[in-house]
Amino acid sequence: MTEAIRVGVLGAAGKVGQAVCEAVEAAADTELVARVDKDDRLETFAENGAQVVVDFTHPSVVMDNLQYLIGAGIHAVVGTTGFDDERLDQVRSWLADSPATGVLIAPNFAIGAVLSMAFAQQAARFFDSVEVIELHHPNKADAPSGTAYRTAALIADARRAAGVGPSPDATTTELDGARGADVDGVRVHSVRLAGLVAHQEVLLGTQGETLTIRHDSIDRTSFTPGVLLGVRSIAARPGLTLGIEPLMDL
Amino acid sequence: MTEAIRVGVLGAAGKVGQAVCEAVEAAADTELVARVDKDDRLETFAENGAQVVVDFTHPSVVMDNLQYLIGAGIHAVVGTTGFDDERLDQVRSWLADSPATGVLIAPNFAIGAVLSMAFAQQAARFFDSVEVIELHHPNKADAPSGTAYRTAALIADARRAAGVGPSPDATTTELDGARGADVDGVRVHSVRLAGLVAHQEVLLGTQGETLTIRHDSIDRTSFTPGVLLGVRSIAARPGLTLGIEPLMDL
Amino acid sequence: MTEAIRVGVLGAAGKVGQAVCEAVEAAADTELVARVDKDDRLETFAENGAQVVVDFTHPSVVMDNLQYLIGAGIHAVVGTTGFDDERLDQVRSWLADSPATGVLIAPNFAIGAVLSMAFAQQAARFFDSVEVIELHHPNKADAPSGTAYRTAALIADARRAAGVGPSPDATTTELDGARGADVDGVRVHSVRLAGLVAHQEVLLGTQGETLTIRHDSIDRTSFTPGVLLGVRSIAARPGLTLGIEPLMDL
Amino acid sequence: MTEAIRVGVLGAAGKVGQAVCEAVEAAADTELVARVDKDDRLETFAENGAQVVVDFTHPSVVMDNLQYLIGAGIHAVVGTTGFDDERLDQVRSWLADSPATGVLIAPNFAIGAVLSMAFAQQAARFFDSVEVIELHHPNKADAPSGTAYRTAALIADARRAAGVGPSPDATTTELDGARGADVDGVRVHSVRLAGLVAHQEVLLGTQGETLTIRHDSIDRTSFTPGVLLGVRSIAARPGLTLGIEPLMDL
Repeated sequence: MTEAIRVGVLGAAGKVGQAVCEAVEAAADTELVARVDKDDRLETFAENGAQVVVDFTHPSVVMDNLQYLIGAGIHAVVGTTGFDDERLDQVRSWLADSPATGVLIAPNFAIGAVLSMAFAQQAARFFDSVEVIELHHPNKADAPSGTAYRTAALIADARRAAGVGPSPDATTTELDGARGADVDGVRVHSVRLAGLVAHQEVLLGTQGETLTIRHDSIDRTSFTPGVLLGVRSIAARPGLTLGIEPLMDL
Repeated sequence: MTEAIRVGVLGAAGKVGQAVCEAVEAAADTELVARVDKDDRLETFAENGAQVVVDFTHPSVVMDNLQYLIGAGIHAVVGTTGFDDERLDQVRSWLADSPATGVLIAPNFAIGAVLSMAFAQQAARFFDSVEVIELHHPNKADAPSGTAYRTAALIADARRAAGVGPSPDATTTELDGARGADVDGVRVHSVRLAGLVAHQEVLLGTQGETLTIRHDSIDRTSFTPGVLLGVRSIAARPGLTLGIEPLMDL
Repeated sequence: MTEAIRVGVLGAAGKVGQAVCEAVEAAADTELVARVDKDDRLETFAENGAQVVVDFTHPSVVMDNLQYLIGAGIHAVVGTTGFDDERLDQVRSWLADSPATGVLIAPNFAIGAVLSMAFAQQAARFFDSVEVIELHHPNKADAPSGTAYRTAALIADARRAAGVGPSPDATTTELDGARGADVDGVRVHSVRLAGLVAHQEVLLGTQGETLTIRHDSIDRTSFTPGVLLGVRSIAARPGLTLGIEPLMDL
Repeated sequence: MTEAIRVGVLGAAGKVGQAVCEAVEAAADTELVARVDKDDRLETFAENGAQVVVDFTHPSVVMDNLQYLIGAGIHAVVGTTGFDDERLDQVRSWLADSPATGVLIAPNFAIGAVLSMAFAQQAARFFDSVEVIELHHPNKADAPSGTAYRTAALIADARRAAGVGPSPDATTTELDGARGADVDGVRVHSVRLAGLVAHQEVLLGTQGETLTIRHDSIDRTSFTPGVLLGVRSIAARPGLTLGIEPLMDL
């Protein structure tokens, strides 16, 4: 039997960090060897033989964390936000000096959301029409959601690249807003409803048939399978990987 | 065994009239006794002993048809449009002279659509949030659909009557149109997609649960079960009946 | 302004009791005046002027609770299970001596689930076909769910009463189980899937159209709006009320 | 501007052939140059300069058709059924003598159905649970549908290859059939409902999230976009191509 992967967790005392710790402990092929929070020393990871460290902390500390981890030859799986080109270049430069180390930085670890976007992108050029409906709890401040924006942009790119024209639409009389928002030529509708969490439907249609790709996320722990996928895959991917999709061999 | 109801059809040569004829012939408890079109005499109905006549013709001829039918004591099931208050009063006045005769005038014979509106209306006051999504083929000229307008208005009335406040919505940043159209305080989203026909979803949500009422109409013959319901019920309802809902004992 | 309803909670320290306490405190028109758990005296309720008490406790203690509450003229909203005919008769007999007191005993407080069943029952006789799909988390021991059984039975009753025959089905070659379970002539399909909580779809179909009634419950707190409905309504309904549906004026 | 592809149609007088003819005429980049039916000569195709011929005829004539077309260097897009290994080998042997000619033989031209299967296969290994629901009109004789069988088999293969265990299922009490049919370890549920045509849902679930891939086909013309895709692609693919998926570059 293969030995379990030795995993450390940064921000282990926070809500997200705790969920990561539980997932690492529950999986048969991973072992939790170090929990580090604000007041703890980063060296704890090396001292406990961590092979991969998961970082869902804060933009203000994540660069220090990564400098340490890459320097110590420890792979990193990072869900912290705020990576612009400058930061990514800095990470690449550290990795150049530690060529066996892998770092995964991903904006979204929900496997279903990532697959949903990938499938929408693959399917987009085969259908006359495509629209996106995203549905969230009523406390959300922005409409459309960031995921819906990205999904629409991927769809628009795929259709442009294939030379597909705009979705047909004979609307001549519209009550303001009925046909949704226009994101790069793709109509996006935002529903806000008590009792929902985070949901999205991509609807594609052509002569006599439709294809619907729906993702429902009803629990804040839905990112943990994606984190485990990262933990299991990153040792075999030296250098910088952006997003979990490259790990999925779609 | 009960005798079959003797049915006549007006506009029998048109597309809709033909579908009505087929449905009347296919049902075990109805018998098609007269087909009348533009150049035929209305007296054909009485001569063939029609008990009920179905009229899906044109606003320009429907009043003449009704005057004849009511005068002859023949019940009528009418799907023709264009009935304003003046026309309805005229029908009522004719019926006053023929008190045993029943006339049904309905804007929508699709049983599923009518139930869908009735259920939305019943449920509306029990949920914090309610929104409507209607989805149609891309050749439709108006957005939202007439049915979606009516559904939203019924929902708004029911909530007002029960003293329910507006659906919660924390949106502060919105791309124009994302949150749909505002119909009497109810958000309505219109999707236009190749491969669709006519579909509608009413989404209702409260703490931890949602209720969705969805109607799919994929065939222009979906009005015929409602017409048959009218044919079977109208003899027992002298006077004017508006809409098929009163026939359904909900 | 109306005064808030003074509410007590039994089993206040348990998970369900806590959720009830939070809901009562959060609502504008109810006030939490007494929390009682195992070791507390029932008299606390009267001493604090409780007008309605909510009981989600255990079959072994609920009868003692009700005897006290009815004797004290305090209305009761009861979600505890285990009421057979004998117990219900006992409750009725106590209520006979306290004619102004109301007791609500309900097996299901999820408003969406109750509406879903009511609508399925109303719609059942208008469609040629009806089937039920229930979808739950994979830890559920029984298939179909209790709610699906009840829904199918209500549908079957409604169709029998209206003289509607069985749903058409031309299946001649079936892989064992494909067509689901037969509950009183209604096909029921049970899906078990990680990532789900408790969901149910009633599908009704006739010529060219379908109506789908879907209920999604994704949180254990989804029963609290129904409890609040009971708390607000029970004072106006002396005697025994079974289920929340009679409170809903459908 | 590119010249239109010159297309011939076999079985042009039949229902399916007529739909193909209409689609070829409606598309901007294809031109219908020959309609051939039972009593017509195959040479009509060469005489009219057909570059691609579409064959939705009958197993009893399709081999003669292909022998002629391949011999004349005309590409073929074939939806006729009944191709076993022996027939496919025969086609390959004819193609060996006409190395620039392409033949596409596909069991299913509905793009949405093919994508739906491809996506199910790609996604299957990332989720703990997967089940299939197929929904058809009530005149269908077999349950599950052929597409559902194939989908389940593809899912089962993908999970086996990735070492994923069976979907979790704690059911201990089951009413016979409730949990559906077992196709290679994947549960498949077959719904039969008036008002439906041909629909399928693949449900995938893991911790806190689900992904649903739904295909709806509501019209017998839904195969024509796939036929046009074949017509446009086959000239660039000499030899035998099985199924339209290889043309889709997924």
